[in-house]
Amino acid sequence: MREEFMLVVKKFGGSSVANKDRIFNVAQRCIEDYKAGNDVVVVLSAMGDTTDDLIGMAESINPNAKKRELDMLLTTGEQVSVSLMAMAMQALDVPAVSLNAFQVMMHSTSRYGNARFKRVDTERILHELDSRKIVIVTGFQGVNKYDDITTLGRGGSDTTAVALAAVLHADKCEIYTDVDGVYTADPRIVKNARKLEVVTYDEMLELASLGAKVLHNRSVEMAKKYNVELVVRSSLNRSEGTVVKEASHMEKMLVTGVAADKNTARISVIGVQDKPGIAFNIFDTLAKNNINVDIILQSVGREGTKDISFTVADNDLENAIKVLEANKDRLTIQQITWEEEVAKLSIVGAGMMSNPGVAAKMFESLYNSRININMISTSEIRITVLVDEKDIEQAMIAVHDGFAVND
Amino acid sequence: MREEFMLVVKKFGGSSVANKDRIFNVAQRCIEDYKAGNDVVVVLSAMGDTTDDLIGMAESINPNAKKRELDMLLTTGEQVSVSLMAMAMQALDVPAVSLNAFQVMMHSTSRYGNARFKRVDTERILHELDSRKIVIVTGFQGVNKYDDITTLGRGGSDTTAVALAAVLHADKCEIYTDVDGVYTADPRIVKNARKLEVVTYDEMLELASLGAKVLHNRSVEMAKKYNVELVVRSSLNRSEGTVVKEASHMEKMLVTGVAADKNTARISVIGVQDKPGIAFNIFDTLAKNNINVDIILQSVGREGTKDISFTVADNDLENAIKVLEANKDRLTIQQITWEEEVAKLSIVGAGMMSNPGVAAKMFESLYNSRININMISTSEIRITVLVDEKDIEQAMIAVHDGFAVND
Repeated sequence: MREEFMLVVKKFGGSSVANKDRIFNVAQRCIEDYKAGNDVVVVLSAMGDTTDDLIGMAESINPNAKKRELDMLLTTGEQVSVSLMAMAMQALDVPAVSLNAFQVMMHSTSRYGNARFKRVDTERILHELDSRKIVIVTGFQGVNKYDDITTLGRGGSDTTAVALAAVLHADKCEIYTDVDGVYTADPRIVKNARKLEVVTYDEMLELASLGAKVLHNRSVEMAKKYNVELVVRSSLNRSEGTVVKEASHMEKMLVTGVAADKNTARISVIGVQDKPGIAFNIFDTLAKNNINVDIILQSVGREGTKDISFTVADNDLENAIKVLEANKDRLTIQQITWEEEVAKLSIVGAGMMSNPGVAAKMFESLYNSRININMISTSEIRITVLVDEKDIEQAMIAVHDGFAVND
Repeated sequence: MREEFMLVVKKFGGSSVANKDRIFNVAQRCIEDYKAGNDVVVVLSAMGDTTDDLIGMAESINPNAKKRELDMLLTTGEQVSVSLMAMAMQALDVPAVSLNAFQVMMHSTSRYGNARFKRVDTERILHELDSRKIVIVTGFQGVNKYDDITTLGRGGSDTTAVALAAVLHADKCEIYTDVDGVYTADPRIVKNARKLEVVTYDEMLELASLGAKVLHNRSVEMAKKYNVELVVRSSLNRSEGTVVKEASHMEKMLVTGVAADKNTARISVIGVQDKPGIAFNIFDTLAKNNINVDIILQSVGREGTKDISFTVADNDLENAIKVLEANKDRLTIQQITWEEEVAKLSIVGAGMMSNPGVAAKMFESLYNSRININMISTSEIRITVLVDEKDIEQAMIAVHDGFAVND
């Protein structure tokens, strides 16, 4: 009755395969699934600090190494992981085979260091699964149209796992990390934070982009697009983890989670001319310099001018100011001010869009804790406020308590 | 006038790329050739002890790891070397590109750990050379018909270099090592040993199989088959090295070199029946147990029996005795004796075949030094004697002096 069994894709990060004991721990967990009759595809990152070590070697030889060669170098890390994992499973008497991006044929775009999957072949993997092997695939890497090796950038191994789950029509895609799921807030700060059983793709996307570093946005976006059921769980314990899936069959919670992000800075451009096209020009200039702008607030200034404030990531601040200074006259900017010590606090929940009282409740919680709100930004399922960085932890607790996210 | 320039394949072993300084040293040497207008293809081994380290990791996880997975693991070593080398050349402002066995398509047989090349594609390499890049290829590895990675076994990177030189019709194939050429004898033992300017493929094959560990036989055999001109030279100095090529235009030296091999043991089977098929049965039994037999000596024994002596490699001795004991009755063996402390001494030279006095001269030199000869074996261009291991160094010097190989 093979039909009753599942096809599961399981992804383990670098710390889960950092040494021999952990490799065997992962092998055991995969073998349990396999022995229960399931088809198992495993996606691995490079062991522990391997990728950083390889980058260090490259930088010592050429600090401006071409990304093509960096990708050629870095992808050896995952190849080491997958071959050692296959050996571990074979040592436990389970047939296993390791495959790299060439062997699977994970077709990607050409962009080295930040490629995206275009097409993933299934023939080789299905052939190996048919002969009842556990298939272990290198995460993070692809092959472009020149037959060159690419890497996928941040969160690449998660993306590999989701892509394989999508093309193989896997029943689920388990992402193993060092936390045991997605929480209503960072449990290191909010003591009564609670692990969520289920979140929607959209909620996860908002949470991921707001500093809950459990899953990378790209993998969640791909999971949403191909309707892959994700499970976020720990490689260190047997906790059930959090399921990420479509909302349809879920009860919509008012607020699913609270997220904080300290990696943000505010910039204000003062006294710009109040005429059409000026705001566009400002943000267009920043975009062309690869500076991502987040929350934007526009207010009326003196004498037919206006003031525009917006946030950027901390590491873009210096460059943003330089770009604005260089274009000050053209953009009709009278003055530029900035503030680095700010942080974003967000609440996320699919139930929000039909409940206008949520924002008011959030502001009330913050007001009761005497926390000043600098800026506000909202989407259908998210409300974000900018507060002073020193206030962020207190703000998190206040808002979490205010919505009793824990109940 | 591109037509006047050469296509050169240059191979560097693991010690030549063991660290940053050595990588840049190799890069510089390749760049000199490139800037002189030549097309340059570089073949590299894994850095320093990388391969041993990877084998150590594998053994700690699974001492009986499948060779397929070992090959998947080990081949990452060369991929690291080639990408770092490309970065080094780019740091020196020379365009370079690294390619692995998949990218070149080095088609090999299926046998993991000891594959052989079946076919090597040239399209990608020629394309990169056409755009005036130095092309850096992973040595030691191939891809089999299952799209799996194989390794070529001992001397694999030399073989890769010769295979590429053959299919690319290279003008020469330079094998860089830590010695600066092929010597008339081991210069650590025979102080007046002289570097040879030229040796024939056949002489090199005899020397290589007799313990002159400069080149592996497989690469010399392939070079002979495809008429690839080999140059053995040092990566540490600018010495011209030794050219290995066809004999046609060379003056044939009487004796080209003297080689010693301590890795040998003698076995004697005493009192076997003197009837047809018995000797064949003995060597067939050993061959079926993967035991290579070298020098064979047969002598008349007592009462219609004969005694057969032969040599095997030291590490085959134990197994050979076990196999012979197990088949003692069937092979009509009355007694088995053996001696581990023996060594082979050989003289090699293409001029030998037309000069019957060479053997006598060798024996005379040994006799004058009071060195006892246990067994003798000859080929058209080689004479080998078996002596006690304690005598081998003195024997080398005596024979080298006797032929004045140095003149």
